Amino acid sequence: MALVVCDVGPRDGLQNEQRVLLPATRAELVERLSAAGLPRVEAVSFVNPDRVPQMAGAEEVVAAVSPREGTELSGLALNERGYDRLLATGLPRINFAFAATEGFSQRNVGSSLAKGVEKAERIYRRAREDGLRSTATVSVAFGCPFEGVVDPGRVVELSARAVEAGAEEVVLSDTIGVAVPRQVRDLVGRVCAFGVPAGFHGHNTRNTGFANALAAVEAGAEVLDASVGGLGGCPFAPRASGNVATEDLVYLLEGEGIETGVDLDALLRVAEWVEGIVGHELEGQLYRAGGFPPR
Amino acid sequence: MALVVCDVGPRDGLQNEQRVLLPATRAELVERLSAAGLPRVEAVSFVNPDRVPQMAGAEEVVAAVSPREGTELSGLALNERGYDRLLATGLPRINFAFAATEGFSQRNVGSSLAKGVEKAERIYRRAREDGLRSTATVSVAFGCPFEGVVDPGRVVELSARAVEAGAEEVVLSDTIGVAVPRQVRDLVGRVCAFGVPAGFHGHNTRNTGFANALAAVEAGAEVLDASVGGLGGCPFAPRASGNVATEDLVYLLEGEGIETGVDLDALLRVAEWVEGIVGHELEGQLYRAGGFPPR
Repeated sequence: MALVVCDVGPRDGLQNEQRVLLPATRAELVERLSAAGLPRVEAVSFVNPDRVPQMAGAEEVVAAVSPREGTELSGLALNERGYDRLLATGLPRINFAFAATEGFSQRNVGSSLAKGVEKAERIYRRAREDGLRSTATVSVAFGCPFEGVVDPGRVVELSARAVEAGAEEVVLSDTIGVAVPRQVRDLVGRVCAFGVPAGFHGHNTRNTGFANALAAVEAGAEVLDASVGGLGGCPFAPRASGNVATEDLVYLLEGEGIETGVDLDALLRVAEWVEGIVGHELEGQLYRAGGFPPR
Repeated sequence: MALVVCDVGPRDGLQNEQRVLLPATRAELVERLSAAGLPRVEAVSFVNPDRVPQMAGAEEVVAAVSPREGTELSGLALNERGYDRLLATGLPRINFAFAATEGFSQRNVGSSLAKGVEKAERIYRRAREDGLRSTATVSVAFGCPFEGVVDPGRVVELSARAVEAGAEEVVLSDTIGVAVPRQVRDLVGRVCAFGVPAGFHGHNTRNTGFANALAAVEAGAEVLDASVGGLGGCPFAPRASGNVATEDLVYLLEGEGIETGVDLDALLRVAEWVEGIVGHELEGQLYRAGGFPPR
């Protein structure tokens, strides 16, 4: 199976941007990413628009998008209400996230760790019954802003429960960008042993994101999340960067001989366009430096 | 032998900054880096101050610095005149760089590739006679802004000549930040076979710098160049970043279990101070995000 690079810019990127974009603009971003060859795009998040105004109108975004064949669209949900909304849009994949720590669970979704995992299990079961493909994202799988270093054994156990409940893949999220490659290699390897695709969602908040992504692939990951232009940021480190930049990741992967199917030149043009619509320079390096060798 | 992290911020960093700093300020930077535990600091460059005003007064910088025991100071030179100046200061190590391509050699030091290498060979011989420790840095060892991809065989051959002439270590420089880990692993491994310490000088211009540094260490590199705060830039990509940030590299290395002897908290404070003296935010992520776990 080829590596699936999932661009989460329209979701994890934009939800951390100050400027709120209209659904039509967000739909255009999704279409541009699709046209650049991304195999998967996380297009929307079905959250309460009063809490996250950047994600308002998720249904409108989905309705306005016609991705090319070869791009799978997914949406994020964090609760049952979000699941119902996603189901109604006809999106083929749900990414349902739950936290690996009590502190993050309480503050991010307002429930205990135990209740959060039970809720996630119900969703993976429902997705299986409803014929939706499902991704289980384990948030703060390496480090938590409230609890510090996270026990990998607990993450493995929670991942196993998600798979048991029906999740079709498990993405380990370095939500606050603190992991180093040996941790990523270890956890990804252990999740791969469950027999479902494992993925890694890396942030470059401490400049370890790209080395981590590579370590994930070496350990068997089949899915890597990234955000065009490195769009977004980190609510826990307002001056630092967020997701690894998709085009920089593609440059690295292709250089290592790992095929992604992404048209790098086209993706660089998307990053340039994104800089314009959000109104500031992005953390991605490649769109500023240019590809190599120059064409 | 422990890994030697060499902070080139006072040299490669500052020479790419618009603001020209006084020798006293540059000396203070060198001392702060020394106090933070850096085993080596490239303090100055003995170049023509009319060409590079940021490096004017190299002798004053050296005279003003009293590094702690355990920090070796080095200086860069690109020609015989620079060598003579360095020798007169009493610095214990010279880093003499030459280019791996004709185009870069012509435009950076104004001589042919062949003449550039012969000049370098004379310098390494002189350094041995003069009792100076010497580093041979091979510039544009992976990619050249004028010639594109560089033949690794040629870099190996040039490195061999440097060692033969007396260079005590060879640092492979990804001057314009285009390399990927498999290239770094390959070249570092081949240079290690010469029996002298190999090093890697990485730029993060395309976000591959940290993965490359790790690959270099895995392949046997004993020296890694980096710049505090990611200070500096790239004259060939004015909107992009330059050297990998030393504190981010130390975070990564220590996380991987590779000891550096650097006091990370102290180094983060140096990066914060550097932001103030150059007057703008730096590319380093860690000093903006904070260490982890938080202390």
